[in-house]
Amino acid sequence: MQWYFVAALLTILTSSQGILTTLSQSNGRYLYDYATVPFLAEVFKLVVSSLLLWQECRVSPSTRMTTDWKSVRLFPIPSVIYLVHNNVQFATLTYVDTSTYQIMGNLKIVTTALLFRLFLRRKLSNIQWMAICLLAVGTTTSQIKGCGEASCDSLFSAPIQGYMLGILSACLSALAGVYTEFLMKKNNDSLYWQNVQLYTFGAIFNMARLLADDFRGGFENGPWWHRIFDGYSITTWMVVLNLGSTGLLVSWLMKYADNIVKVYSTSMAMLLTMVLSVYLFNFKPALQLFLGIIICMMSLHMYFAPPNILVDLPSTTEAAPMKV
Amino acid sequence: MQWYFVAALLTILTSSQGILTTLSQSNGRYLYDYATVPFLAEVFKLVVSSLLLWQECRVSPSTRMTTDWKSVRLFPIPSVIYLVHNNVQFATLTYVDTSTYQIMGNLKIVTTALLFRLFLRRKLSNIQWMAICLLAVGTTTSQIKGCGEASCDSLFSAPIQGYMLGILSACLSALAGVYTEFLMKKNNDSLYWQNVQLYTFGAIFNMARLLADDFRGGFENGPWWHRIFDGYSITTWMVVLNLGSTGLLVSWLMKYADNIVKVYSTSMAMLLTMVLSVYLFNFKPALQLFLGIIICMMSLHMYFAPPNILVDLPSTTEAAPMKV
Repeated sequence: MQWYFVAALLTILTSSQGILTTLSQSNGRYLYDYATVPFLAEVFKLVVSSLLLWQECRVSPSTRMTTDWKSVRLFPIPSVIYLVHNNVQFATLTYVDTSTYQIMGNLKIVTTALLFRLFLRRKLSNIQWMAICLLAVGTTTSQIKGCGEASCDSLFSAPIQGYMLGILSACLSALAGVYTEFLMKKNNDSLYWQNVQLYTFGAIFNMARLLADDFRGGFENGPWWHRIFDGYSITTWMVVLNLGSTGLLVSWLMKYADNIVKVYSTSMAMLLTMVLSVYLFNFKPALQLFLGIIICMMSLHMYFAPPNILVDLPSTTEAAPMKV
Repeated sequence: MQWYFVAALLTILTSSQGILTTLSQSNGRYLYDYATVPFLAEVFKLVVSSLLLWQECRVSPSTRMTTDWKSVRLFPIPSVIYLVHNNVQFATLTYVDTSTYQIMGNLKIVTTALLFRLFLRRKLSNIQWMAICLLAVGTTTSQIKGCGEASCDSLFSAPIQGYMLGILSACLSALAGVYTEFLMKKNNDSLYWQNVQLYTFGAIFNMARLLADDFRGGFENGPWWHRIFDGYSITTWMVVLNLGSTGLLVSWLMKYADNIVKVYSTSMAMLLTMVLSVYLFNFKPALQLFLGIIICMMSLHMYFAPPNILVDLPSTTEAAPMKV
């Protein structure tokens, strides 16, 4: 399977995620407990990966699986990072409004490239660094508050703690991605076995989160397993399946492609969601969306096109001016 | 003299032009007839070029000057193109508002590159074409209407004639630039002699325009030469000298550098004006200005950096993941 096919599929599914989540709401609010969605998605991924692993073992008995505790103990770490990240995210939102938070979220494109360089020792050319910055600039451009939009709080008016936490959040998000890539690539273990470990811990951490929410709420609505499917519609199930599928695709990309490919996929998905929203939700397209798309497309070309295509001049005939 | 020094000077002077013009107004309106400014700037350029030509002839009697009518007759053409351009500009503004017109003005960056390629046969690499598009996108981004700005007319709501005329306007503006470059480079004539021809026709055409305005107004305020300096302040004179100086720098660039260098200078000047306006006129900086500056800086680097700097990977060590 070619990585760009998987990347394109990830873009489409990630983009559907936003649309489906909006469609699963009723009058702008959730009739179900949204925290159950990532838990069920982890369970879905775990089940799919287990089945695929079982099949792989049956077909080829030489399937590589490191069951050493020294290796297994590395797999809960991404879940731990996400847990810290969620709390930092929560803290950030006490200092900045959601649209500023969204804008700052684009920083993770740059932090991912930095950690990719530092921890995975992957070299990027000058033009690839520029492409990464342009991707962040492009996604930010598409999110510029339009003329006539309701809230006009300036991006530059939040307290300094808000920006510091925003940067920390971008670093944690990048760290989780880069660390997962390291985990998936560190040996030739079967992808499905790596997934089983990753999602087992993922399911446990998500379950712990549901339980923690129950404790915080004093079990007012009963324990989470009593009301897990309350308010679920067919769309909610599609949200779960979609989230699970994107997770599986991301795992594949982490093993056979890299974090930068994932970053491009999800950034393109954000733009695709905005374009689809124009048709589906009567979202009014503005100049900034158009400009953001152009910038991101150029960035994509700059990052992935072979260098000789980018800089080769067609056989140059020295400045021959037109004849009169 | 290095071309980048001249280009930097052009950026500073072009940027001062906007500031000085604003400062020369009194309560937002001109106390003088603005049409006299370009005429006097042409006269200033003609005088300076004549003096420099006279000095050059004195120092080196071999100064090259083609006085053949077949050559001289080419020099009024830029003035004719500007005359047509001014009228198209006027027509465009009957269909679109000034801010849409301003946004469409960025098209001339792309049309200049196209005519530069077509008429002057100058080849650009893939990355240089992208740089040109990014420059246009960057200047446009900096001009996005901010949240809370007064008029919120959509850029996409003008009649089709408005867009057609906007494109025509961008083509004419590019044609004038590319044609001037052709004129300046077509032979080894002294730059000053070429300037004298160019500005003589420039002064004549501007004078004709003043006279045409008088005829249109039925000589209500008397002929233009009676009231040419009415309302002139020291700042107005600075506007004239500044406009004349930028014209001389542009001529120099057309002969010894090219249209793309000029386009970069004037685009950077636009951004510099916006930055200076933050300090001078309490202009409120928005995210779009910041993003526009980043995009234009990347474009500048992409266009002018040597190709090997852009794409050379530092000696690659294959993906060595971090050790645990």
